[in-house]
Amino acid sequence: MAGLLAGVDLGGTSIKTALADESGRVLARDVIPTESHQGPDAVLARIADLIQRQLANIANESTSSHLLGVGMGVPGLVDVRTGTTKFLPNLPSQWRDVPAAATLSERLGSPVRLLNDVRTATLGELRFGHGRDRPRVTLAFFSIGTGVGGGVAIDGQLRLGPLGAAGELGHQTLMADGPRCGCGNRGCLEALASGPAIVAEGVRLMRTGLAPKLHQLVAGQCDRITPREMLAAADAGDELVREALQRAAIWIGIAAANVVTVLHPDLVVLGGGVAELGDLLTSTVRDVIRNRVGMFPTDSVQVVRSQLGESAGLMGAIALAQSPVG
Amino acid sequence: MAGLLAGVDLGGTSIKTALADESGRVLARDVIPTESHQGPDAVLARIADLIQRQLANIANESTSSHLLGVGMGVPGLVDVRTGTTKFLPNLPSQWRDVPAAATLSERLGSPVRLLNDVRTATLGELRFGHGRDRPRVTLAFFSIGTGVGGGVAIDGQLRLGPLGAAGELGHQTLMADGPRCGCGNRGCLEALASGPAIVAEGVRLMRTGLAPKLHQLVAGQCDRITPREMLAAADAGDELVREALQRAAIWIGIAAANVVTVLHPDLVVLGGGVAELGDLLTSTVRDVIRNRVGMFPTDSVQVVRSQLGESAGLMGAIALAQSPVG
Repeated sequence: MAGLLAGVDLGGTSIKTALADESGRVLARDVIPTESHQGPDAVLARIADLIQRQLANIANESTSSHLLGVGMGVPGLVDVRTGTTKFLPNLPSQWRDVPAAATLSERLGSPVRLLNDVRTATLGELRFGHGRDRPRVTLAFFSIGTGVGGGVAIDGQLRLGPLGAAGELGHQTLMADGPRCGCGNRGCLEALASGPAIVAEGVRLMRTGLAPKLHQLVAGQCDRITPREMLAAADAGDELVREALQRAAIWIGIAAANVVTVLHPDLVVLGGGVAELGDLLTSTVRDVIRNRVGMFPTDSVQVVRSQLGESAGLMGAIALAQSPVG
Repeated sequence: MAGLLAGVDLGGTSIKTALADESGRVLARDVIPTESHQGPDAVLARIADLIQRQLANIANESTSSHLLGVGMGVPGLVDVRTGTTKFLPNLPSQWRDVPAAATLSERLGSPVRLLNDVRTATLGELRFGHGRDRPRVTLAFFSIGTGVGGGVAIDGQLRLGPLGAAGELGHQTLMADGPRCGCGNRGCLEALASGPAIVAEGVRLMRTGLAPKLHQLVAGQCDRITPREMLAAADAGDELVREALQRAAIWIGIAAANVVTVLHPDLVVLGGGVAELGDLLTSTVRDVIRNRVGMFPTDSVQVVRSQLGESAGLMGAIALAQSPVG
């Protein structure tokens, strides 16, 4: 009997779930608010309920509603072997050391695998996005949003390391005495080129009177500044705003170039909200790799925008449900 | 019939060769000057002659003198698939695009494999050094000397990438607008913490009168300053010289920490002449990894000095003769 796979993308504010068949075709999809303040037990119970409801709906339509497995991407550090959450910076502290895989598995009667959310998104790109039909691809995935996460796949295999923590590409030190990062370090890529870092420079330029178009676009309200608004302002003529975006793109390019020296990947994939900068970002990253990697030709390295976009995490969770990684 | 393996470590000034049995036990070893000005044909002929002489000597002692294969480490970029040299910065330009593997293979009648010298040394550490008896080890090898080379092995497998160029750990950008590197980039680890970069700071301190012990040790002669002399001066009381060494060690630590965020390896192995700084280097690198990798615990990452030292390249060449990599 053919079976079904469930994918869960647990976020700080919302939870996405999907059911798919064994080929990864999505049959059902839902989003619910996380309400993490309820505590892990209540949230996990709601996730299990949602999957069961999705299964029941499918059962009405077809005969195959057997759940083969569940994959869940979690925002932070998890112990992939035990399926336990370790440190989830965007969820309350009672989420530390929660045996989430065992809890869900008991409620759903099928195996559950846990993985960091950005590694899960990397797996999504690997199996269902740019890596599809390239079984031996080596890729580096940058997810650039409020934070900068990442993941690497080597010869078609997601690299986990002993804790599922390898691939933290946003926490390379690029400026030894740079601004403080959320991880405690200084000068990480995340501290230099995350969404908030980019917006901060937009704020400065606007408040200094150096970004008149941006001022117009957001009616002078800092809270409305986003990288996307900044791109619109740049396109409308704010040259200093364009320069600010390019400077952020250069930092991302340097981080990518460093990964290229280490792994010489086939693909650098850019995802997360900041990837909406589109060609400004990808072409700058391409240039920086070409200019900074001097030891070997990098013509073979493709720099592309995530193919799955916001669905990368959910599709990766389905891939995780399908088979173990690492 | 048991056979023999030949390893060659081709350097800018000297060539080391060794014969080993199939277990990697070295039976013969030689060093000859490179005299690269003679051109590739003459040099390759001398290498073949030397191996044949070693084989003849062995034949006198035992019945097994059948050559199974040859591995050669080469200082620069090689095309590992075709066994052709590409760009060898320390050898004259006629070494570009030399089919060295085919030439040697014809002369010796057995398969010859080519690989970059530091990747070859990494392979040596992997198969015969710290990686011995750890079949799934992930390690990052830094060779810090006149240049800074590197190599990575992932789950027991040397990472080559499409050109055998992955693992260039010395060419991560650590200071975006830093000093110019030999590779054309700015602010590479190599530009900040190679032997010459360290010595340059020794020169500055001595000439400024800030390193009296160093001045004494090298009789005021800049040409005699080495990292090892600087360590002796530091131990004799030159605190600013110690600080200079520590600053270089911190850069190496930052490069290592970056690789840890990407790969979460089991081992960081430090080799090359600068590794003679010993505990000052390894303990600083350890501290920097612990302090800068904030996203996950790094207790499992061991930082060690190369076990094979100067023999790493030759032992890696023997390992390369034994079986293909990547």
